[in-house]
Amino acid sequence: MRNILLRSTARALFRNGGNYHRSFSTAVIVQPRHHQHGGGACGNLYWQRMSTLPEKKDQQTEESKKDANHNAVVSSYWGISRPKVLKEDGTEWPWNCFMPWESYSSDVSIDVTKHHVPKTFGDKFAFRSVKFLRVLSDLYFKERYGCHAMMLETIAAVPGMVGGMLLHLKSLRKFQHAGGWIKALLEEAENERMHLMTMVELVKPSWHERLLVITAQGVFFNGFFVFYILSPKIAHRFVGYLEEEAVISYTQYLNAIESGKVENVPAPAIAIDYWRLPNDATLKDVVTVIRADEAHHRDVNHFASDIHHQGKELKEAPAPVGYH
Amino acid sequence: MRNILLRSTARALFRNGGNYHRSFSTAVIVQPRHHQHGGGACGNLYWQRMSTLPEKKDQQTEESKKDANHNAVVSSYWGISRPKVLKEDGTEWPWNCFMPWESYSSDVSIDVTKHHVPKTFGDKFAFRSVKFLRVLSDLYFKERYGCHAMMLETIAAVPGMVGGMLLHLKSLRKFQHAGGWIKALLEEAENERMHLMTMVELVKPSWHERLLVITAQGVFFNGFFVFYILSPKIAHRFVGYLEEEAVISYTQYLNAIESGKVENVPAPAIAIDYWRLPNDATLKDVVTVIRADEAHHRDVNHFASDIHHQGKELKEAPAPVGYH
Ligand SMILES: [Fe+2]
Ligand SMILES: [Fe+2]
Ligand SMILES: [Fe+2]
Ligand SMILES: [Fe+2]
Repeated sequence: MRNILLRSTARALFRNGGNYHRSFSTAVIVQPRHHQHGGGACGNLYWQRMSTLPEKKDQQTEESKKDANHNAVVSSYWGISRPKVLKEDGTEWPWNCFMPWESYSSDVSIDVTKHHVPKTFGDKFAFRSVKFLRVLSDLYFKERYGCHAMMLETIAAVPGMVGGMLLHLKSLRKFQHAGGWIKALLEEAENERMHLMTMVELVKPSWHERLLVITAQGVFFNGFFVFYILSPKIAHRFVGYLEEEAVISYTQYLNAIESGKVENVPAPAIAIDYWRLPNDATLKDVVTVIRADEAHHRDVNHFASDIHHQGKELKEAPAPVGYH
Repeated sequence: MRNILLRSTARALFRNGGNYHRSFSTAVIVQPRHHQHGGGACGNLYWQRMSTLPEKKDQQTEESKKDANHNAVVSSYWGISRPKVLKEDGTEWPWNCFMPWESYSSDVSIDVTKHHVPKTFGDKFAFRSVKFLRVLSDLYFKERYGCHAMMLETIAAVPGMVGGMLLHLKSLRKFQHAGGWIKALLEEAENERMHLMTMVELVKPSWHERLLVITAQGVFFNGFFVFYILSPKIAHRFVGYLEEEAVISYTQYLNAIESGKVENVPAPAIAIDYWRLPNDATLKDVVTVIRADEAHHRDVNHFASDIHHQGKELKEAPAPVGYH
C-alpha cells in the first residue's frame, strides 16, 4: 500500500492523461449523447476528444481522424479537452458530476450512537437550537422519510461550503496556511450534495418543496455565514448536532425500510457508482452508507469545535483527510 | 495506464488506509513537532496515530502501545485519526495543507501568448475593466515583481471560490447536477491559493500590504459575488482576461529573472513538493509553472464564458478535469 499511496496518485495519473490530450489535440468534439443510466441527470452533452484512449494512439490514422471529424461539431472552446474516463468494467464513465477517483467505500463500522454531551454554554445553545429545528421539521415531514432526507440534504450541504469559503478567504487575507481544513469542509459540502443528488433520484420534489428550499437556503446560508464569523466554535458544534440528528433520521428511515413501511427499491445508479456498491444494491444499502457519512461529518465537526474549545485555531490541528 | 486510472485511485487507497486506522485505534496522539522544511508554515501541530504504518501492524505488541502512550497527549478528539503519509523518498510528508495526490507536474507547453479577442459588448466591458485595473496595479507596484505577484494571488483566489460556491448553492436549490463545474472552479481557487502560499515564502508582506489585501478582498469578494449573479458570462470572461494579465505579469517576472534584475533564488520547499520540481529547482522554475497554471485558468474561464455565450448553462458542458 505504501508504494502505491506515494507514487501512483490519481491526480498525477490523470495529469499525464491530460497532458497527453493537450499535446495531441486541438479540435474538440461536442456530441449530444444520452446516458446509459442516470437519465441524463449529469447534463446531456458529452465533451470529449475525437481520438480514443492514449494506448490506441499508434493505431490511429489520419483517415480515422477525418472520419471522426465528419460527425463532429468543432468547437472554439480554447482547446480544452477531456480524456475519456472508463469504469472498471471497461464501459464509459457515465457521470460528469463526479469522477471514479472521488468514489469510495463508506466505513459503515462507525459508531452511529455517539453523542457529544453539551458542556459549555455554547454547546447547550447549539444543542437546543438543533433540537428546536428538529421538532419543527418532524412536525412538517412526519413519516415522509425520503422527502425529509432530501430536504435535509439541501440544508446540510451549506455549512461546509460557508466554512470552507471563510477559511479560504482568511488564509488569503492572513497569508497563512489552513492545515487542510478548507478542503475538508468543502469535501463535506460536496459529499452532502451527492446525498442530495442521490435522494432526488428516489423522491421527486414538488413545487412547494422547491419553494421551501429556496427560502430555507436564503435564510440558512446568510444566517450560518454570520454565525460562523461570530463563533466558528459554536457553529461547528451546531453542525455536529445537526449531523447527530441526521444519523437519527436515517436510522428511522432504515427501520421503516426494514419493517416494510418503505419499499426497499433498487439503489439509483449514481449511488452504486459513488459508494462503490454492488449492482444489486438497494435503498437500504444506500441509506446505510449515507448514515455512515453523516456520522463522519458529526465527528469532523465536533472535532473542529473541540479544537476551538482548546483556544486554538483549526489550522493548528491538521484536518481529517478523506474522512467521510 | 488504463488499469491504473480505473482501479487504483488515490482516494480509494486512502480510504482503505483511513478505514484501517479507524478500525484499530481509538486514542489519538497530538504531538507538537517542527517541520523539516517549510518553517512550520502549515501549522505546528502534527496529529497522528500512535501506531506506525499499516504494514507494521502485526509487529506491534501491547507493550509498544503502552510505550507510545507514555509520551502522548491522549485527545478526546472523537477518535478521528490521520494515517501517516510519506513522501516518495520514504520521509514523512511535511505538509498538512496539501497531500501528495494533490501535487502535479505543470504542463508548461501551454501557449502563453493566446488572447481572446473581445467580440461582444460584454467581452469589451470585461477586457477594458481588466486593462484599467492593470494600469492601476502597474502604477502601484512598478517593478516589484514578487510583491505584485503575491498581491495578485490574494485576489486571483477569490473568483473560483465565489463561482464554485454559487454553483453549489444553485445545484442544491434546483436539485440539479453541475457537470463538475463546482469542483473545477474550487480547484482553480485552491491552485491560486497555493500560488500565494508559494509567493509568501519568497516575499514577506509589509503591514500596509496586509491592510491593502484586507480592503481589496472585502471589495472584490462582494463585487465579484454580485457580478457573478448578474452575469456569469461576463464574469468568466473578466476572469479570463485577468488570467491573461497574470500570464503577462509572470512573463515580465521571468524576463527580470533572466536579465539578472531579480535574483534566481532556490525554489521554496512547498513549491518543489506541489509542482513535483527537482530538488535544485529555482525561482525561474517556479514562475514558469505558475505562469502555465495561469494560462490554464485563462482557458477554463474563457471556455466557461463561451458556453454561456452559446446560451447554455455550464452544467451542459462537462467541466475540465485536472486542467491546471
Ligand atoms: Fe447528508
Ligand atoms: Fe452530514
Ligand atoms: Fe495565480
Ligand atoms: Fe490564475
